[in-house]
Amino acid sequence: MDNRPIGVFDSGLGGLTAVKELMYQLPNESIVYFGDTGRVPYGTRSNETITKYVFQDVRFLLNFDIKLIIIACGTASSVALEAVKKEFDIPIIGVVQSAAAKAVKVSTQKNIGIIGTQGTINSGSYERKIKQIDHLAATFAKACPLFVPLVENGYLDHEVTRLIAQEYLQPLKEKHVDTIIMGCTHYPLLKRTIADIMGENVNLIDPGAETAKYVKKLLKEKDMLAEAGAKPKYKYFVSDSIESFSKLGSLFLEKKINESVEKIDIEKY
Amino acid sequence: MDNRPIGVFDSGLGGLTAVKELMYQLPNESIVYFGDTGRVPYGTRSNETITKYVFQDVRFLLNFDIKLIIIACGTASSVALEAVKKEFDIPIIGVVQSAAAKAVKVSTQKNIGIIGTQGTINSGSYERKIKQIDHLAATFAKACPLFVPLVENGYLDHEVTRLIAQEYLQPLKEKHVDTIIMGCTHYPLLKRTIADIMGENVNLIDPGAETAKYVKKLLKEKDMLAEAGAKPKYKYFVSDSIESFSKLGSLFLEKKINESVEKIDIEKY
Repeated sequence: MDNRPIGVFDSGLGGLTAVKELMYQLPNESIVYFGDTGRVPYGTRSNETITKYVFQDVRFLLNFDIKLIIIACGTASSVALEAVKKEFDIPIIGVVQSAAAKAVKVSTQKNIGIIGTQGTINSGSYERKIKQIDHLAATFAKACPLFVPLVENGYLDHEVTRLIAQEYLQPLKEKHVDTIIMGCTHYPLLKRTIADIMGENVNLIDPGAETAKYVKKLLKEKDMLAEAGAKPKYKYFVSDSIESFSKLGSLFLEKKINESVEKIDIEKY
Repeated sequence: MDNRPIGVFDSGLGGLTAVKELMYQLPNESIVYFGDTGRVPYGTRSNETITKYVFQDVRFLLNFDIKLIIIACGTASSVALEAVKKEFDIPIIGVVQSAAAKAVKVSTQKNIGIIGTQGTINSGSYERKIKQIDHLAATFAKACPLFVPLVENGYLDHEVTRLIAQEYLQPLKEKHVDTIIMGCTHYPLLKRTIADIMGENVNLIDPGAETAKYVKKLLKEKDMLAEAGAKPKYKYFVSDSIESFSKLGSLFLEKKINESVEKIDIEKY
């Protein structure tokens, strides 16, 4: 038993899609969330800058008595997971591993598409992980840079989003992928649009959901789950104004956020 | 005569649309440009954060022996110009004043539309400046948050951009504005699309171009122009990787960038 909270961070508020899954899979676990809204997005920045930011994010979360850290951001997991794992003792889990394992498991043709930010796609992280699990699997990656601004501006179910998605997904259709990893926190909100274009036989993998399942299994194995009766506490931190947190945060968490949110100066860490 | 360079900064590389106009209007002037690519965009951040960033940007440029600073960013000019002007002795010029003056001058019906980022529109800076010049002028402002990502991803002349622009500009059409201020560095690249939708009788004001003209007039009046035969030097600095600078920079400058570009740590200033 271990009632200490789980730390989760993301480049912004998109990581709350992973928190939603954690709350669902592990309803007794307390969570400390940090969204780096003052420096979002990570997806277009250089590896050097992303790595610097990720170290600061981890150092901030270590101020809380946490038992495990989840990097909910696809870009940060892809670029900087290995570097922070080497540096810190606490278990740090990225979203790449679980999503890659699930994709290989459900893909009947071993023909897997990956969509994500430019940073995630450039890193090749999902492809590497998939080939480690099954070196015969074929992978096709496509950056979808407009998906994040479309989601953040509420264009979830809109003609424009369908047109952009058709353009982005066309190369994956031509490769006949049977599985797609939605490699960015925002993309599960476009699941219906993506499914409409790809057809219902294509599996869509949500890395946040797969990671939540993996963390549940890991905590169980290590006997580190919170007590069954524990009442979870949720704390939210951001690096820019807290004003827009409730609105955008609720979009990703898919429920109203009642807990308080605090602004911190991430450059200090 | 004053051969010292002009300092220009922007939240990213969009400010190069203003630099292009400066180079054209003032071909003998040397320029030091800083693009805060490590923290772009400013348009969605809080006033407090934007102001902090602008102070750092000004302090960085003051390390060069510059004669004047132009804030090329609509958001930064709107939110933080007054605060930095109070703090520093050097002339600091934002893009709002010249654009507002030009709009009032050319608008026959004094019915003026303003488009910009959420930060610029929330600040109400253009409206305030227009009403100072002509308190009877009517203004209609509309944030266009998807224009920046569309431009940066090369969707300049695309069905999607037209659909989004139609949606954004419809309220301004209904108000029968006869003049529109394109209140963000990126928007002049969408000028053709905006003109197609608004019709050819609507004046489109480019704040970067108007500011370049104003700076030319100011330097002339103060006898601070560079010598007529001076060979200008251009220096470029960014706060993220220099890799993407050439490609995106050339898009805004509308010519190849041959000068070197250097990465700096803006958090130090």
